[in-house]
Amino acid sequence: MDKSELLTLLTEIAEGKTSPEIALDKIETKSFGNIDFAKPDYHRQLRQGVGEVIYGAGKTAEQILKIANDLLSHGQKRILVTRMSEEKYASLKTEIDMQYYPTSGIGIVGKIPKPNTDGTILIVAAGTSDLPVVEEAELTAKFLGNQVQRIVDVGVAGIHRLLAHIDDIKNARVIIAVAGMEGALASVVGGLASSPVIAVPTSVGYGAYFGGISALLSMLNSCASGVSVVNIDNGFGAAYTASLINHM
Amino acid sequence: MDKSELLTLLTEIAEGKTSPEIALDKIETKSFGNIDFAKPDYHRQLRQGVGEVIYGAGKTAEQILKIANDLLSHGQKRILVTRMSEEKYASLKTEIDMQYYPTSGIGIVGKIPKPNTDGTILIVAAGTSDLPVVEEAELTAKFLGNQVQRIVDVGVAGIHRLLAHIDDIKNARVIIAVAGMEGALASVVGGLASSPVIAVPTSVGYGAYFGGISALLSMLNSCASGVSVVNIDNGFGAAYTASLINHM
Amino acid sequence: MDKSELLTLLTEIAEGKTSPEIALDKIETKSFGNIDFAKPDYHRQLRQGVGEVIYGAGKTAEQILKIANDLLSHGQKRILVTRMSEEKYASLKTEIDMQYYPTSGIGIVGKIPKPNTDGTILIVAAGTSDLPVVEEAELTAKFLGNQVQRIVDVGVAGIHRLLAHIDDIKNARVIIAVAGMEGALASVVGGLASSPVIAVPTSVGYGAYFGGISALLSMLNSCASGVSVVNIDNGFGAAYTASLINHM
Amino acid sequence: MDKSELLTLLTEIAEGKTSPEIALDKIETKSFGNIDFAKPDYHRQLRQGVGEVIYGAGKTAEQILKIANDLLSHGQKRILVTRMSEEKYASLKTEIDMQYYPTSGIGIVGKIPKPNTDGTILIVAAGTSDLPVVEEAELTAKFLGNQVQRIVDVGVAGIHRLLAHIDDIKNARVIIAVAGMEGALASVVGGLASSPVIAVPTSVGYGAYFGGISALLSMLNSCASGVSVVNIDNGFGAAYTASLINHM
Amino acid sequence: MDKSELLTLLTEIAEGKTSPEIALDKIETKSFGNIDFAKPDYHRQLRQGVGEVIYGAGKTAEQILKIANDLLSHGQKRILVTRMSEEKYASLKTEIDMQYYPTSGIGIVGKIPKPNTDGTILIVAAGTSDLPVVEEAELTAKFLGNQVQRIVDVGVAGIHRLLAHIDDIKNARVIIAVAGMEGALASVVGGLASSPVIAVPTSVGYGAYFGGISALLSMLNSCASGVSVVNIDNGFGAAYTASLINHM
Amino acid sequence: MDKSELLTLLTEIAEGKTSPEIALDKIETKSFGNIDFAKPDYHRQLRQGVGEVIYGAGKTAEQILKIANDLLSHGQKRILVTRMSEEKYASLKTEIDMQYYPTSGIGIVGKIPKPNTDGTILIVAAGTSDLPVVEEAELTAKFLGNQVQRIVDVGVAGIHRLLAHIDDIKNARVIIAVAGMEGALASVVGGLASSPVIAVPTSVGYGAYFGGISALLSMLNSCASGVSVVNIDNGFGAAYTASLINHM
Amino acid sequence: MDKSELLTLLTEIAEGKTSPEIALDKIETKSFGNIDFAKPDYHRQLRQGVGEVIYGAGKTAEQILKIANDLLSHGQKRILVTRMSEEKYASLKTEIDMQYYPTSGIGIVGKIPKPNTDGTILIVAAGTSDLPVVEEAELTAKFLGNQVQRIVDVGVAGIHRLLAHIDDIKNARVIIAVAGMEGALASVVGGLASSPVIAVPTSVGYGAYFGGISALLSMLNSCASGVSVVNIDNGFGAAYTASLINHM
Amino acid sequence: MDKSELLTLLTEIAEGKTSPEIALDKIETKSFGNIDFAKPDYHRQLRQGVGEVIYGAGKTAEQILKIANDLLSHGQKRILVTRMSEEKYASLKTEIDMQYYPTSGIGIVGKIPKPNTDGTILIVAAGTSDLPVVEEAELTAKFLGNQVQRIVDVGVAGIHRLLAHIDDIKNARVIIAVAGMEGALASVVGGLASSPVIAVPTSVGYGAYFGGISALLSMLNSCASGVSVVNIDNGFGAAYTASLINHM
Repeated sequence: MDKSELLTLLTEIAEGKTSPEIALDKIETKSFGNIDFAKPDYHRQLRQGVGEVIYGAGKTAEQILKIANDLLSHGQKRILVTRMSEEKYASLKTEIDMQYYPTSGIGIVGKIPKPNTDGTILIVAAGTSDLPVVEEAELTAKFLGNQVQRIVDVGVAGIHRLLAHIDDIKNARVIIAVAGMEGALASVVGGLASSPVIAVPTSVGYGAYFGGISALLSMLNSCASGVSVVNIDNGFGAAYTASLINHM
Repeated sequence: MDKSELLTLLTEIAEGKTSPEIALDKIETKSFGNIDFAKPDYHRQLRQGVGEVIYGAGKTAEQILKIANDLLSHGQKRILVTRMSEEKYASLKTEIDMQYYPTSGIGIVGKIPKPNTDGTILIVAAGTSDLPVVEEAELTAKFLGNQVQRIVDVGVAGIHRLLAHIDDIKNARVIIAVAGMEGALASVVGGLASSPVIAVPTSVGYGAYFGGISALLSMLNSCASGVSVVNIDNGFGAAYTASLINHM
Repeated sequence: MDKSELLTLLTEIAEGKTSPEIALDKIETKSFGNIDFAKPDYHRQLRQGVGEVIYGAGKTAEQILKIANDLLSHGQKRILVTRMSEEKYASLKTEIDMQYYPTSGIGIVGKIPKPNTDGTILIVAAGTSDLPVVEEAELTAKFLGNQVQRIVDVGVAGIHRLLAHIDDIKNARVIIAVAGMEGALASVVGGLASSPVIAVPTSVGYGAYFGGISALLSMLNSCASGVSVVNIDNGFGAAYTASLINHM
Repeated sequence: MDKSELLTLLTEIAEGKTSPEIALDKIETKSFGNIDFAKPDYHRQLRQGVGEVIYGAGKTAEQILKIANDLLSHGQKRILVTRMSEEKYASLKTEIDMQYYPTSGIGIVGKIPKPNTDGTILIVAAGTSDLPVVEEAELTAKFLGNQVQRIVDVGVAGIHRLLAHIDDIKNARVIIAVAGMEGALASVVGGLASSPVIAVPTSVGYGAYFGGISALLSMLNSCASGVSVVNIDNGFGAAYTASLINHM
Repeated sequence: MDKSELLTLLTEIAEGKTSPEIALDKIETKSFGNIDFAKPDYHRQLRQGVGEVIYGAGKTAEQILKIANDLLSHGQKRILVTRMSEEKYASLKTEIDMQYYPTSGIGIVGKIPKPNTDGTILIVAAGTSDLPVVEEAELTAKFLGNQVQRIVDVGVAGIHRLLAHIDDIKNARVIIAVAGMEGALASVVGGLASSPVIAVPTSVGYGAYFGGISALLSMLNSCASGVSVVNIDNGFGAAYTASLINHM
Repeated sequence: MDKSELLTLLTEIAEGKTSPEIALDKIETKSFGNIDFAKPDYHRQLRQGVGEVIYGAGKTAEQILKIANDLLSHGQKRILVTRMSEEKYASLKTEIDMQYYPTSGIGIVGKIPKPNTDGTILIVAAGTSDLPVVEEAELTAKFLGNQVQRIVDVGVAGIHRLLAHIDDIKNARVIIAVAGMEGALASVVGGLASSPVIAVPTSVGYGAYFGGISALLSMLNSCASGVSVVNIDNGFGAAYTASLINHM
Repeated sequence: MDKSELLTLLTEIAEGKTSPEIALDKIETKSFGNIDFAKPDYHRQLRQGVGEVIYGAGKTAEQILKIANDLLSHGQKRILVTRMSEEKYASLKTEIDMQYYPTSGIGIVGKIPKPNTDGTILIVAAGTSDLPVVEEAELTAKFLGNQVQRIVDVGVAGIHRLLAHIDDIKNARVIIAVAGMEGALASVVGGLASSPVIAVPTSVGYGAYFGGISALLSMLNSCASGVSVVNIDNGFGAAYTASLINHM
Repeated sequence: MDKSELLTLLTEIAEGKTSPEIALDKIETKSFGNIDFAKPDYHRQLRQGVGEVIYGAGKTAEQILKIANDLLSHGQKRILVTRMSEEKYASLKTEIDMQYYPTSGIGIVGKIPKPNTDGTILIVAAGTSDLPVVEEAELTAKFLGNQVQRIVDVGVAGIHRLLAHIDDIKNARVIIAVAGMEGALASVVGGLASSPVIAVPTSVGYGAYFGGISALLSMLNSCASGVSVVNIDNGFGAAYTASLINHM
């Protein structure tokens, strides 16, 4: 139920065509589903402007399939599934029409829409190893109606490679900075940009990198203003926030 | 040197009134200062739209004073000093005209401007003990030209208090969620809001709270989308990012 | 040896039918067994009202089998085995009559009894990925004679899903709150409930979740009163404590 | 507003003496206060059976005083203030009638009530250094209407001291086990008792004790069933949960 | 070269049968070997009374074999190999005469000697899952010439099982206490014993046990005196120290 | 009650001069005291051969005084108080006859006895900053009847200083190795000695030393055999264990 | 483009044979490549005197191949690939001429050059298990034109093995000290040497070694001067720095 | 005893003017002192080319004074004391002729020598708050005979300030990079420089900076080659290593 459907319903109440009780029932009973193991949130579209997303990591292929079908049957047009292993996709793909991206483990049911806002989300990433997170962020941002530009392998150890893109940094509406190891990219980009920077630490590194904690701490302690941080490898979360900002 | 001053200079080059070399010199030599122990960044206004801010915690009162005077003498109108102890303020106050706020340790030289954008930044905070961070965020946001609303003591243990403010949450353009202890406020607010939420963990708690780490981890692991995080107690950073978003 | 058997023995002493020395011997020598690698605790039923439980994770299939048979041969009617992998079960199943639940790795010898107390233990869980812990708690609670209700996928990011169950929360005699990621569910439920809440952090999450530590810290730092916590993924322990309370 | 007052109000609606709208207003508007920096929760008594408690650590003396007076003026009879330093008490004591206990930093406005339930809460503590936490737990439990017994200095290094109290352990309705250092007391007591044990790690120790983390981890990893844990030094939380259980 | 061989050599010098230079050369050049990747310490027997031990975990099967043969060829009679996987043993066993113990991964070349001292080393262990560490300690102690007694599955949650062995605890010359989870066994045993207790934390547990850190911290923070600690799962190290003490 | 007193009592039973019940009562009722806040362990002398020691850190001066007097009145001749601040001592010293050592905070009531065993405990320490721990170990060892030798400032960065004492290392019956920073001393000494080495990490260092954790980890991970470890700064515990060994 | 090629180009400008614009273009456009997922840094040779190195761990075999070919086609003569698994090498080896070293996972395209400086880099390592890191350091150092000497299995527990090499330590121009477990080797070597020591902690150990953190902390806290540290297992980084120093 | 003095002595042996035994005695007995609590290392000058340095933090003023006087009386000309509080200096200054620098807590006895090597050590620092560490490094480097240049407040958030000094970075023989917070400076400088970079993390920051651990991890995980790291705030250690390199 999107906003216009809701308005129709509310108008029917005002016009006496529907009793408040019945209307309440319609709204309430449709606000979320109740599969055995999950309660798909049908109203998120209404409440937050974005349809329910399925986080695939902790779910079996069967659970993903059931939730997706339940959402489709309640009118959702597009579904984004994140962190879905190739094995899960393999056992799903004959059951549902889904585009799968193995680098990031993203699956998309329905079409990626055209951008519905002018600004560009710029994704800059320190190294080749950050590509899975970059792809998760890029596909999420596109799924949510954004234009995306990406620049990869511009880690600060060769700062001339980053400075060659200074115009892109200046022109972006929102920037997602992706880096593992020491995560210094976020600070340097944060100092160059005048737009909000969302930093994504990645679990790229070895030794005392603690699965991305070193990059996370760097980004939280950034000496540059305008930098906020999401969880390690959380390309989805960065893109979701970036999209909210880009649609303002 | 703000953008219009720079344009004038560049036009003079085009018109042959100034040589490129001289212009370069003017731009370069004015871009940052060089006090013995600091290099105030005169161009931040130009580069990022915000004047230099002085982080007071690691500086002596004398250093704060020198940097502030250097900035004033280079044309900055307003200066925000953060994390300045009462002792430092006491030894400064006869030397410079500054408004001081002891709860947060903020000092402001010059006037807080009128809001220059329509949206409101909503600050919600879990408890009374979070007030120092709330005040740092509020003053920073106002200093940067924003309208601010604040709601304090709406921790999730009494969720009806938070739900009573659901309209404010829906209407805000950006939300800053401030909480210590288990930091659950960010997730609940993140689920209710359709605008970006910037979460600020605070060093409020005892026992296994690790100076705010428990709240920080909660916020990074938030199951709500649209939540990004800044460092513990970093009200300034949250407000800076919120202001960038609110001015888009 | 349960309480009535013991009473009979003690009466025999008082009546001179058994010497204290012989009685002592009977009690002492039967209080625990002595297999090569384990000392099954035959008196736990007497001492704590619950028969010995076999923690399967650190034992071989052979060891589990030997302990189970030893307990059965000393009169225990029902045995609960926790954290038993499917491999171990596969090599056991022809040797002993056991019901196996693969989601949680629980095996049960004998029948789950009917509830022997009126109150209900309510298990609320944040997400689908928490199901293994939910099942461990649910089966343990039923094994110990409790009536159980479960509500899954009511994470705080969609708080309306949780609030729809407020009556269940109010009516439960004890509540087990299961959540990974930021673990905020425990605090929200703790604020709504007037019964004791036992919080179980789960190892669900990614990035800076540290195998469940983020949820554990959240729950320990809960701003809600009446919340106590068990170890990460310890559905068994939560149900055991809940059962003690539910039988008061 | 307690339950009987609410019933009166609801009956008036049923009898047509009060309109639902006005009743709603009365209930809603009285559910929490709105001092500048705090929202006292007047309905907690109704919702959870316990009046609002003031956590004193993060509040100024003035804030504590204002909240206490606000609660008193809304009909609360007894107020418990926790973690209040002697300095804060000193500046409060002429303004409000309060009994202060310096070992734990507890302040109580109004009288400690007589026990209103039969069972006893037993507090066992490992050492003399745990006394501040013991007192916090004891006073809280008494404030909440419980009979309390305490046994101090029965650490497991001299286990005969603990075993001398085995009858007290067997007879208690709920047990609070308080220990710092290695926190082994909780496991030993948990193995002896057939009632629920709430373990409170304390910040007592030196070297690699990490402000109580060593005891906290011990208690979370207890090999005894029926043990749940609260935050380090959280005597209040343990007693609150124990009281809930003791009143069942 | 053991002590008597050395004495012979030194006497030859005194008697003029060997020049000091030649003797020096013999001693020096034989003090350690020089295989490509290792320098077997031939003099450890002389210096510390114990032959070189091969830590198998970080070595390939080939490296273990070469070092063992090198030691044998320099006169060592018995060799203890620790932490050797079954795969490594499988590829070694046709090349060298070795007794292998799969539970602990110990391999022994030569015969376990008869005890050459009177006292007994008592190994007490909390649970069945600790057996690999118990076996490593037991075999090491026997290899070093000690009489060993072991008692397994006497965790503190059923303290009567431990108290049943109080005479063994009183009579042992040295005690090795092995426990995972909360590691409380060391403190209880430490309080009962009057001999030195060497505590070995094990990597047994789940959730917040951190691979044995919870038990390690418990043991380091033990409130019992006379307890010292070795690394997690270090059964070898505990037995080595126990043997030194038992041979005094 | 020491062993001979007990034997007398037991003989009286055998000879019919005392009934078992009365004897039991004498033994039981005297086994520990019961001051309000403490239960002094009068039988430790009997059980473990060492009188009760008072850990002063978590106790008030009044509590220390009461426990000491209680012990004296039950026949203990010598009392060791550890970790007592100069302030506590100052308020005690007129009430009890005690020798105080400010470097370590040790107080001793009664006389340090003559050594009652032949062997020497050698204390080696890395630097001057380790002196407080060295003194705590030295005084404890002497209090327990040992001969002690100490060598200070022989850190491994100037290894010739340590090698100059190789004879002392070879001749000691037990060695206590005290070091902060990287704690390498324990490994080097462990490699040179053929007697047991008890390693004491100290909270000496700066930066990433974590209050002694770096030294603690070094010592736990020592590549030398025969090294066991006590808690950070626990000179008392090291000396207690060393004394047990030295009296074998 | 190396320095002499650049000089030629600059001379052409001075002589008027090339316009500055064209020269700028040549320099700029060749400074780094732009493969889809990577920006090979062609100027590193010019800027830092060392060609681009490919860190193989986070890249697919295809990505490694493409970058290597791109570098070769831009004139780089030798390529060092680090941390490349045997699987990746297997799928690469028919496509490119590469020498592979499985112990360290190093691959080298082109020939290892002759040493172009006099000094020797000495690599000392504590144990056989450190060999992978030793080999990574050794091959890197040779690739960069250095003469290398290595001494393995000289851990401090048998210090005479290390002291036997004191002349090598005195004569080296730079020393790389490689050790896991407690990492004490760096301190001892640092105290003996008068040349810079670069310490490499390795992830060798078990129990509380934390994947090399114990050795890392030891090395950072070394009481010896002249020791600096690189990341855990970072043989490459140590050799790179050592080579810079050896070429001064 | 420096090298020439030693040569004289050795020549005297060769010429028969001194017996080897007497010479040995002179060398041995003078190699280190033996004050009660310290063993000053008189031979460090000979062994490592640098006189003994006194680390003042863990020593009393009296101990510092005694060691300094002992060193002076054994012929050392210059003494560097680090980490000496103003209080300690105040109680020392009338007893010894020392120049004191309060920002870093450095005290110097004797004159800072003229540089005895050509290269320059460049110290770059991120912010004003890093000055204490910068001064410690600068004075140490000068004490050791180096020419030093320093550039402060060039944090990466305003990268143009750093790039303005690119020539200094290119020309330095060794670079010390000092930064707190996220420590990104080391990576950026490491990418620009062709000389070795020694990174010093500082304990500057707030929130999740962990006393400098965030900067330390950043520097250890630097994506730039040629960067090695010393302990947090260890300006002395960085300068010592830099000096070794600068004197090659």
